[in-house]
Amino acid sequence: MASSIVKRATCSAVAVLRSGASLRSYARVASGTDIIAAAPNVSLQKARSWDDGVSSKFSTTPLKDIFKDKKVVIFGLPGAYTGVCSNKHVPAYKDNSEKFKSKGIDSVICVSINDPYVMNAWAERLQANDAIEFYGDFDGSFHKSLDLTTDLSGALLGTRSQRWSAYVVDGKVKALNIEEAPSDVKVSGAETILEQI
Amino acid sequence: MASSIVKRATCSAVAVLRSGASLRSYARVASGTDIIAAAPNVSLQKARSWDDGVSSKFSTTPLKDIFKDKKVVIFGLPGAYTGVCSNKHVPAYKDNSEKFKSKGIDSVICVSINDPYVMNAWAERLQANDAIEFYGDFDGSFHKSLDLTTDLSGALLGTRSQRWSAYVVDGKVKALNIEEAPSDVKVSGAETILEQI
Repeated sequence: MASSIVKRATCSAVAVLRSGASLRSYARVASGTDIIAAAPNVSLQKARSWDDGVSSKFSTTPLKDIFKDKKVVIFGLPGAYTGVCSNKHVPAYKDNSEKFKSKGIDSVICVSINDPYVMNAWAERLQANDAIEFYGDFDGSFHKSLDLTTDLSGALLGTRSQRWSAYVVDGKVKALNIEEAPSDVKVSGAETILEQI
Repeated sequence: MASSIVKRATCSAVAVLRSGASLRSYARVASGTDIIAAAPNVSLQKARSWDDGVSSKFSTTPLKDIFKDKKVVIFGLPGAYTGVCSNKHVPAYKDNSEKFKSKGIDSVICVSINDPYVMNAWAERLQANDAIEFYGDFDGSFHKSLDLTTDLSGALLGTRSQRWSAYVVDGKVKALNIEEAPSDVKVSGAETILEQI
């Protein structure tokens, strides 16, 4: 693993997304954090169609089911159907899925403050749901617990996730990368975290 | 116009969506309400791609631009990519677009507490964006001002719109229909409001 240091990038790209980034406090989550303990009683919602949501009785997935005894690469982004997320962030993780597998990663996860039905439709449109597991954080409780939210109202999004990635082993954060501006993919992309595993 | 009486339906369908409905207070908006005055300084966000959002500098649309000097049919629903909205509510308005035009309606509008990029993708998937104008209410300020929100956390959606429709002339609500349960389309469908015009 190359480094467990939190990398922070310089700003570029869409000014409105920058302004959101400038409002945030530094994330509480850090290398070494136990992500399950840091977000107690928080669950994510596996991306699925509405019909599957109904038939699952709107079930949610506790963090321990996602992280315990597993090697996970997880990345968070500001929103389904936004530009950088659709064109750059997700595709690189999708294209590198075999490399993640060859390094022993059990799951590559994409999470966003969206509902699981929107996440599902977006994953289908990106043809990425075979390579990546998509989860919604519909009420933002996961990102709020980790202090990874930012106000993107200027981009008509509201409270959303920062753009970040983490390598998590048995719930412990081994590497964490948070973009300075949510419009950047400088440190949170697939290539960086591949080097950190 | 058949009636300006607010119609309320009996419950049916998805139990979780029912429970949300039971929590709501009665809507402040009513027949006769000036919708522009009731939601001062509130704007909606025209559905568009992220790229169009960026090139528009994330512009929003004031309510007066939507309603002033116009005959508008507007309907609100709990969420893009949810079942009843996709399969039943939107298609009926789409299929009746010629009837609305023949009755002198200037705009048929669909609004939801979603961001405008999600609304745009959903409208494209429903092939409905020629017949209907889609708007996001990303922070819920429009629906909150009209007291038309409901807690749909049980369906993994969070605070969303109730299911409703209105016929609005020059900003004045002439008919208003709010479903008792957001999972119903008993009074807020296209056929009902066509009779009310």
